[in-house]
Amino acid sequence: MAIKFAKRMERMQASEIRELLKLTQQPDIISFAGGLPAPELFPVEEIAQVSHDLVLKEGRQLLQYATTEGRPTLRAKIAKRMKDKYNTEVTPDEILITTGSQQCLDFAGKLFLDPDDIVLCESPSYLGALNAFNAYEPKFIEVPTDDGGLIPAELDKILTNNPRCKFIYVIPDFQNPTGRTWSMERRHAFMEVINKHELPVLEDNPYGELRYEGEILPSLKSMDTKGLVMFLGTFSKIFCPGLRLGWVAAKPKILSEFIKIKQSADLHTSNFDQGIADAYIENYDLDKHVVEIRALYKKRRDVILQAMEEYFPAGTKWTHPEGGLFLWLTFPAGVSAAKVFAKCIEMKVAGVTGDAFFPNEKTDRNMRINFSNMSEERIVEGIKRMALAIKECTK
Amino acid sequence: MAIKFAKRMERMQASEIRELLKLTQQPDIISFAGGLPAPELFPVEEIAQVSHDLVLKEGRQLLQYATTEGRPTLRAKIAKRMKDKYNTEVTPDEILITTGSQQCLDFAGKLFLDPDDIVLCESPSYLGALNAFNAYEPKFIEVPTDDGGLIPAELDKILTNNPRCKFIYVIPDFQNPTGRTWSMERRHAFMEVINKHELPVLEDNPYGELRYEGEILPSLKSMDTKGLVMFLGTFSKIFCPGLRLGWVAAKPKILSEFIKIKQSADLHTSNFDQGIADAYIENYDLDKHVVEIRALYKKRRDVILQAMEEYFPAGTKWTHPEGGLFLWLTFPAGVSAAKVFAKCIEMKVAGVTGDAFFPNEKTDRNMRINFSNMSEERIVEGIKRMALAIKECTK
Repeated sequence: MAIKFAKRMERMQASEIRELLKLTQQPDIISFAGGLPAPELFPVEEIAQVSHDLVLKEGRQLLQYATTEGRPTLRAKIAKRMKDKYNTEVTPDEILITTGSQQCLDFAGKLFLDPDDIVLCESPSYLGALNAFNAYEPKFIEVPTDDGGLIPAELDKILTNNPRCKFIYVIPDFQNPTGRTWSMERRHAFMEVINKHELPVLEDNPYGELRYEGEILPSLKSMDTKGLVMFLGTFSKIFCPGLRLGWVAAKPKILSEFIKIKQSADLHTSNFDQGIADAYIENYDLDKHVVEIRALYKKRRDVILQAMEEYFPAGTKWTHPEGGLFLWLTFPAGVSAAKVFAKCIEMKVAGVTGDAFFPNEKTDRNMRINFSNMSEERIVEGIKRMALAIKECTK
Repeated sequence: MAIKFAKRMERMQASEIRELLKLTQQPDIISFAGGLPAPELFPVEEIAQVSHDLVLKEGRQLLQYATTEGRPTLRAKIAKRMKDKYNTEVTPDEILITTGSQQCLDFAGKLFLDPDDIVLCESPSYLGALNAFNAYEPKFIEVPTDDGGLIPAELDKILTNNPRCKFIYVIPDFQNPTGRTWSMERRHAFMEVINKHELPVLEDNPYGELRYEGEILPSLKSMDTKGLVMFLGTFSKIFCPGLRLGWVAAKPKILSEFIKIKQSADLHTSNFDQGIADAYIENYDLDKHVVEIRALYKKRRDVILQAMEEYFPAGTKWTHPEGGLFLWLTFPAGVSAAKVFAKCIEMKVAGVTGDAFFPNEKTDRNMRINFSNMSEERIVEGIKRMALAIKECTK
């Protein structure tokens, strides 16, 4: 005998991107590669106070094992927030609190996927979701997208030809990696296709409240009449990610399965972390805090868009996100993103090459750029360097 | 199309035991069914102080995304503790911090098990582990045990006849559910069999420091010369479980796979929770705290053993644990544990029926009893009631 891992581990070897990311973490590199919130906005003093008071007030319950579903008062606050922000009606009982929303992605794979089952996603899609699903050995079908997001007519064609798809994973608001947002019209057309084929939907909404222009749009879940949509939310972008706090909202038939999976995966989400978020919302103004985050990120988005306009060579295109943390570069035909990345590292700047975000098709023409995590001066300097790198690779 | 779950979900329907546990949670029932630590010992004031100071000191890092592997200074403290308590040499780099040690059980299943692979366990074994592995659709082989724990010669036979086993899951110290502990001799004999067959070992040690008589024994990992043993630890029983903090210690070849799984499962363990445990150990005396826990639980163990001696009818047998949280009842042939359980509920007392702890063979003759979570008076009253229930069922 000898140590022999499960087959799935062959697919989890995607260490390339981890190696690339290590390169981008050298201290002298201006990195647009990550996806971190701005830590200078974390409500540090308030959280210090809240955690102190909460432990003294209810330490024996707070530090004990807790229910798998999550802290009741926090589930109620999440339900209220989903109504207020996304016009989405859910009861507290329809919410499971998870160890970050990343955990919901893993659970969805576990719940739906046998080997070789089909999972659908936007082309491109969030790398962390693809990795989570990969552990359950599915096949991916990428649904074509344009500047308005996923194209519903293409989805309809795919579902007509592949009746055994298990679910679709989408990020309708400020998508990772592209920054694109679906219009109301797209949302309605998408839900029509979904209802026609009765396909479960994993709607990931980590950035929805971080909108820098226009109004927040209703969630897909708010338009769901058949109990098909699972909505994933998180406190990572509107509060802080070091507490691992996300949630899934779904109808009981599906949520009860998530709860079973949660029980065997880690029993429950940190009761302390849940208590802190709950008490912070109770004692402070989370909406006001989100206004501050939006103001800072909007400025950074405006600065990066202007710098690209000013310095990037003709032929390179980029998205104009209405919110969120990312935008998406497309280089002219013949310009290799891998080569631009290598040149960028030489010039002490970095993004993430786009191919990791496509489960099947590789084009070597894209790069994802994060703009939430650095000062305006550094953004401009980084874009100048990147512009030079692109020019070098276009010669 | 319609909502269709993965095949594994058919095996995760084990809601019987959850329904039983709900019965035991009625407020007027004296419940020996759970496995909760005594909350009156949680270091509430110290944790209030520690969390307040820590957030003020390093909030921006503490509340931000963190590395998947875990907080470096906490990994170092865990390595030192494994050396001090279990004579086990590991470097901090050989430790991954997880969202409770339950998460390690799920990860082990994910890492090793394809459908129909064989996983070995003691007969009986920890229900939460069986559930975690079940999600990966294995077959279980139960290794026979006696009062000294797993019988190595039986394991040798099984491995000789089943060369394709993937790993064995064991709890050598104060096992859940039986409370049994393996002697040094057993440990050596076990490791001989393991080395002969080169079988990976998942050594779960949640209770090792809670020893009420004799000396703490070295871990299996400390005897491992071939890099086969993965050691699972937790802060749930020596500190508090509401912070979800566990760990796996393994050689790099295995640990690197756990890290990949962790990344896609929940990115990293709560950075806040990790910081609190780290700062508590830094600023207070965890060893002294464990001494207090041991003193209280020892008293409760002694009281429950004496009450059983005094009140239980002849024919009912129970284990005498040297530590941990549980002991294990065996009823005389012909007495159904399920009937005793039902009678117990009538009499407002509860344990957990033992059959859930056997993945294959059901005998309907056992009950698991927890003694860490209630006052001595309540223990005695509960055992009196249970004695009556057993007598009723023996008639």
